[in-house]
Parts: sequence; C-alpha cells; structure tokens
Amino acid sequence: MKMEKYLQQVGDEIWFTEIDRDNLKINYRIKEVVYSETSPFQHIMILDSYDFGPMLVLDGAIQSTALDGYIYNEMITHIPLNIHPNPKNVLIIGGGDCGAAREVAKYPGIQRIDMVEIDEMVVKASKKYLKEVSGDLSDPRVNFIFKDGTAFVKEKRDYLYDVIIVDSSDPVGPAVKLFELEFYKDLYNNLHEDGLMVCQSESPFFYPEMMVNIQKRLKSIFPVVKLYMATVPTYPGGFWSFTLGSKKYREPNPEAFDKDTKYVNKGIIKSCFQLPNFVKDLLITD
Amino acid sequence: MKMEKYLQQVGDEIWFTEIDRDNLKINYRIKEVVYSETSPFQHIMILDSYDFGPMLVLDGAIQSTALDGYIYNEMITHIPLNIHPNPKNVLIIGGGDCGAAREVAKYPGIQRIDMVEIDEMVVKASKKYLKEVSGDLSDPRVNFIFKDGTAFVKEKRDYLYDVIIVDSSDPVGPAVKLFELEFYKDLYNNLHEDGLMVCQSESPFFYPEMMVNIQKRLKSIFPVVKLYMATVPTYPGGFWSFTLGSKKYREPNPEAFDKDTKYVNKGIIKSCFQLPNFVKDLLITD
Repeated sequence: MKMEKYLQQVGDEIWFTEIDRDNLKINYRIKEVVYSETSPFQHIMILDSYDFGPMLVLDGAIQSTALDGYIYNEMITHIPLNIHPNPKNVLIIGGGDCGAAREVAKYPGIQRIDMVEIDEMVVKASKKYLKEVSGDLSDPRVNFIFKDGTAFVKEKRDYLYDVIIVDSSDPVGPAVKLFELEFYKDLYNNLHEDGLMVCQSESPFFYPEMMVNIQKRLKSIFPVVKLYMATVPTYPGGFWSFTLGSKKYREPNPEAFDKDTKYVNKGIIKSCFQLPNFVKDLLITD
Repeated sequence: MKMEKYLQQVGDEIWFTEIDRDNLKINYRIKEVVYSETSPFQHIMILDSYDFGPMLVLDGAIQSTALDGYIYNEMITHIPLNIHPNPKNVLIIGGGDCGAAREVAKYPGIQRIDMVEIDEMVVKASKKYLKEVSGDLSDPRVNFIFKDGTAFVKEKRDYLYDVIIVDSSDPVGPAVKLFELEFYKDLYNNLHEDGLMVCQSESPFFYPEMMVNIQKRLKSIFPVVKLYMATVPTYPGGFWSFTLGSKKYREPNPEAFDKDTKYVNKGIIKSCFQLPNFVKDLLITD
C-alpha cells in the first residue's frame, strides 16, 4: 500500500506525524485516511484518529479535530462578539473548517456572515467529513466567498463590518499575507468606526517573536490592542494566543454571554485576558 | 552504541519518545543523555533536549523541564500558599525535582519545609543536572526525608502542617498509593484545623475519570474541595488540573501575592479557578 505524505505504516498501524518544529514530533495513530487531496493551495487531509476523532490537516499541520476543535473556534469568535455590544455584519477570513462561522451563527442579532476562504476544497471536505466541527451550516446568513482574503479586503463594498475574525493557518504557505501590516490596514478600513478584529497569534511559548510582531503591527493601526489565551491540546505546546485590534471597545461584558458552548463561559471571558508573567513580559506596553 | 530504554538513534540524531497513551507518541530530539539510572523505584533519566533544555524523565514520562517546569511548580505551591493566610509548616510529598520546595522557600514566614520523597536518586540527579528547576536549595528550612510518603503520614509527630502539597507523578508505579482514599485521610489528620492540601489531579482532557475520582475522595473528607487549572506544554494535552482539599479556607487573596515568579501573578491566582464548560461538567456538585 502506498502511504500518503505525512503518514507512516508501522506493522498494521497507520501513524500521522506532525512536525511543527525540527526537534519535536507528535505522532497520532490513525484509524483511516478519510480524505486526501492536493488543492491549488495546499495538501488537505481528513484523518480519523484514535484519540481525537476526525481531524483536518493542512500541509501536515493539524488545524482542527472533532475532540478539541471547539476550543479554538469558540475562543476566536465569542470573545470579540462579546466585546462588541451589537455586532451586525461579521467577516471571517480563513476558517475553512467552518467552526468559526458555526459559532458566529449562534447570534440572532447578526445579519450578515461573510466567510472568505481561499480554498473551497477545505470547506467541502470539512462540511462532508468533519461535521463535529463544521456543524451543518445551513444558516442562510453565511455567504461563502472563495477567494484570497487579502484581495477581498481591498474591494469596494457598500457596507462595513462590525467584527472581522482572521482564522488563518500558520504563517507559512497560503496564510503568510494574512500576517502582514498592509492586510491589517485593509481590515481597519473595512471596519465601522467602532469595529474590531481578532486574529490567532500563535504560541507565546514556541513563537514569541511572531506574537510580538503581530502586536506591533496592530498597535501601529488600532488604538486598542489586547491579547488573550486559551489551551488547545492539539496545537504544539498547548498554549495559544489571540490578538484583538479595536477602534473603540476595550472591555468584555461577561454577564451578557448566554450561548451554548463547550469551552467559553462567563468565567472564561473574564479570565482569558489574565496572562502569565512570561507572556506579560512579551507585551508591548509603550 | 547501545541505546538507553525509551531512546532511539535515527541517523546521527537521538530521539526520546514519550508514550503517555497508546495512540499518541511525542518525540523530543535529544542533545545528550546526561544521566540514566535505575533506582529501586523507577527508571530515572535527565535528558538534555533541543527544545526544552534538560528534562527529568521517570519511567519514560517527562516530569519537569528547564523550559516549562516552573509552570507546574509555581501552580502547585503558590495557589495553596495564597489561600492559607499564614502558613508556617509545609509538607511536600514527592516533588523530587525540588521545584516545589524551591517555590515554598520563597515565603519568609514559613518555618518548616518537610520534603518527603521516596526516591533519593531523583533528588540527587535533579539537584546536580536540573538546576533550572531545582535551584540551589541551600535553604536550611528544607528537610529532605527519603521515605514512602504514605508511611510518613502515618507516623506520630509533635506538630501538624498548615499546607500539604502532593507533588506526585502519574498514578502508575510508585505513586499509585498517593491517589488513594486512605492516604487522603492521613493527610487530613496531619493538618491543623484550618489546614489545606493540594494534589496534581491529571488532565481533564485525557483522564477525566481520574480527576473525578480524586474530587470524590477528597469531598468525602474535606469540607472545601476546589479545582484549578494551568497549561503545561510538556504534559500531554497541555491542560493540567490541581485539586485542593481544605478544612476551612476557601478563597484566594490575590492582592497579597508578591513573589518573584515566571507564571503565577495576581491575575492568574484569580483566573485559574475559572473552568471551561467541559471541565465544569466534570465537577461533582452534590
């Protein structure tokens, strides 16, 4: 049997190896390769794993799993949507696993959910084989737009957004441009005068320089920049950071939170901004 | 070259594989095997790793590393020592890496630090080769007592403890008895009438039954039982739980915290008790 890229046969077992760093490899035992294709943008797999259930793997890096995918998707959506008092138009850039769109759709007051993902094949695979994360997403407010997010935010539109969620993969391959200053400036221009954006900003443990660079870039554009954290078991190191850039609103309103979730609650909305000292030391305070 | 147990030579590289679960293996690239011995209790290694620096490995499981060992050690000590308003006598059971004793020694008001570790070889190796975690530990208040913790807490003594810290390895091998009801009862009897204890209570993600069992046992003995969490990158899944059993005190006093630390601060003391929904669902509320 020919083995797929990133996979190894050991006796009668199949193992997927994630090599996030040269000196650390994480091996997941796989029941079945559910889907494996190369799109114009990246290598896409859905692997059914023993410990985490089905998982979405892009270019060899785990993006989302049935077991813990909700943590990342809830944290990247409900925190900004709790800080904005009345979001109506929401833009998601990336988020091909559809988990972020699913969480955003829990807000009845939101009228428009534009989801701009460069790779339609990721969305199709996730909707078909990773329903634990994607849900059914039949909500008519979700508009799927399959194009490059950096191009989309340069287009003229007759409306602005209240909240923009940048749910990108790591800054390698197709996602590199989603971490650049020019892109963040375009996000600013797509937001209402009280709008805010959030992006995943990598691990403070393994990629502190990246986290600091994102902060620096956002601080040069937005008056309010804040960092919060969550623990995502399938992201290397467990610790994960998110960075907010806001034109006006600064504080969350935990008491207003009333959604049905598996990770986020009032206490988490309060506590996720409390950073350990080694992360505080990475904050730009100027 | 004969390879040590748990190690593999791949070309000119040495890799250590941690097999916490049958279907998940984590490989760390190693610069050097600094120490490797079999004690009467377990297999002990100090491995100098590329990404985490020196690490203590017992029976193939990482206990502590130079890079992230402070997280666990600060969380298992400063939280109970912040809840107790005036701790004087502290007992540590286990904690062979000496990191917990090092943190406890930061409190000038503490008069006695008894550290009961079954395996003297772990302490010797950590003091010699894992100074990033153990510190120099020259503090004269620290009494090293090399014996079985379950036997120690059955002995008669002319004093009681204010805080007991159970810094055990996983409930396999020598640590099994440190998770049993009888042991917890003995801890209760070794505590002052306003004393409290804490134990590491495993991953809520991978070992929820274990976490629930610890809660159940402590709830049958202590009037106050509380759970808090931290993220430890080198523990599988990242999420880690700690469970407190207290005779009287319930609330932390974050404003009183003034120690020099890398993880814990006032905000963390407040926020570590805020649990995600999937962990709250595992709480016994009776």
